[in-house]
Amino acid sequence: MTAADPLTRRLAFLAELEKLKSVTRQSRLVDGSRNENSAEHSWHLAMFAMVLAPHAPGIDTERVIELLLIHDIVEIDAGDVPYHLAGKDLAKIAATEVAAAERLFGLLPEDEGARLRALWDEFEAEATPEARFAKGLDRLQPVLLNLMTDGGTWDDFAVTEEQVMARCGPPIEGASPELWAAATALIRAHFAARRAVG
Amino acid sequence: MTAADPLTRRLAFLAELEKLKSVTRQSRLVDGSRNENSAEHSWHLAMFAMVLAPHAPGIDTERVIELLLIHDIVEIDAGDVPYHLAGKDLAKIAATEVAAAERLFGLLPEDEGARLRALWDEFEAEATPEARFAKGLDRLQPVLLNLMTDGGTWDDFAVTEEQVMARCGPPIEGASPELWAAATALIRAHFAARRAVG
Repeated sequence: MTAADPLTRRLAFLAELEKLKSVTRQSRLVDGSRNENSAEHSWHLAMFAMVLAPHAPGIDTERVIELLLIHDIVEIDAGDVPYHLAGKDLAKIAATEVAAAERLFGLLPEDEGARLRALWDEFEAEATPEARFAKGLDRLQPVLLNLMTDGGTWDDFAVTEEQVMARCGPPIEGASPELWAAATALIRAHFAARRAVG
Repeated sequence: MTAADPLTRRLAFLAELEKLKSVTRQSRLVDGSRNENSAEHSWHLAMFAMVLAPHAPGIDTERVIELLLIHDIVEIDAGDVPYHLAGKDLAKIAATEVAAAERLFGLLPEDEGARLRALWDEFEAEATPEARFAKGLDRLQPVLLNLMTDGGTWDDFAVTEEQVMARCGPPIEGASPELWAAATALIRAHFAARRAVG
């Protein structure tokens, strides 16, 4: 094998992916032991796609899984930007992520890197029903984690019911009205219980 | 929604999957900071399937990805059994894993749980070319991690070159002779370098 050998390039890319296991997200694990990382988050989301596919009729589930497996790879270089902070400097973050995509997918043989890069572009642009479903699941999963930890990072940042509904409603409802109806009921119940406790 | 509502059952299953992020494997991360967990391992393997598909012509890659996403879920109840220890009590481990599969996949609506259970059975039995490719990747990934950490868990357990070749050769070569040829060259070079130093 030479340095330009396709298999060598594929293995170099897979070795580089190791680093996504050390990219820390804001969400905590439900047991509270530590923060979630972007690699296990990506696995969890792929399982969301497999399991929640019945709520997105007509969607190509296999494509959604691929979108979710690769959606956070750029964070190896760019880090995880929490949703509520991203608004501060969107253009700079986007440029950093594009440079990351070029470097990381560029490790692969050209046509294979281009295929993964196109998947990432599709996800980011929410260009297809599959990308919109994937984005909605990416928003739904932290909601469930926060509900399972009685508030989780919502409490850390004093996020209100109205903010949760405003941030999560459009992407999740766009992905699946059924899923958003269920999430709404759970979110409403959570904040109502909080008010009852005082 | 009632307790038997399909969406409620799907969400309960996805919430339970959270626990796979806390199942610790023997492999260390390449940066040495901690051991790998089975959720991020499953993500990494799904990426192996996406990227190494060219080395398994005729294989249904999407199916391999699904097999790898679900292959370790039983560890939520049964834990991760290192390969070199599994021989000690295979029947007991197998029974524990089957009970885990029944409980965990049983959280889902019946037909959906049965589909995932069938995927797990296919993986365990290496019943198809897809399952054999998935098993081979599951064996290849720790080899790469050990090579990237200059020996890793091979050193911890004084594993010899002959043991690596004997344990990993059949499953990886069965998955893809090309991948085994590449892995063999890397393993031989690693142990040769060790002998030269020591």
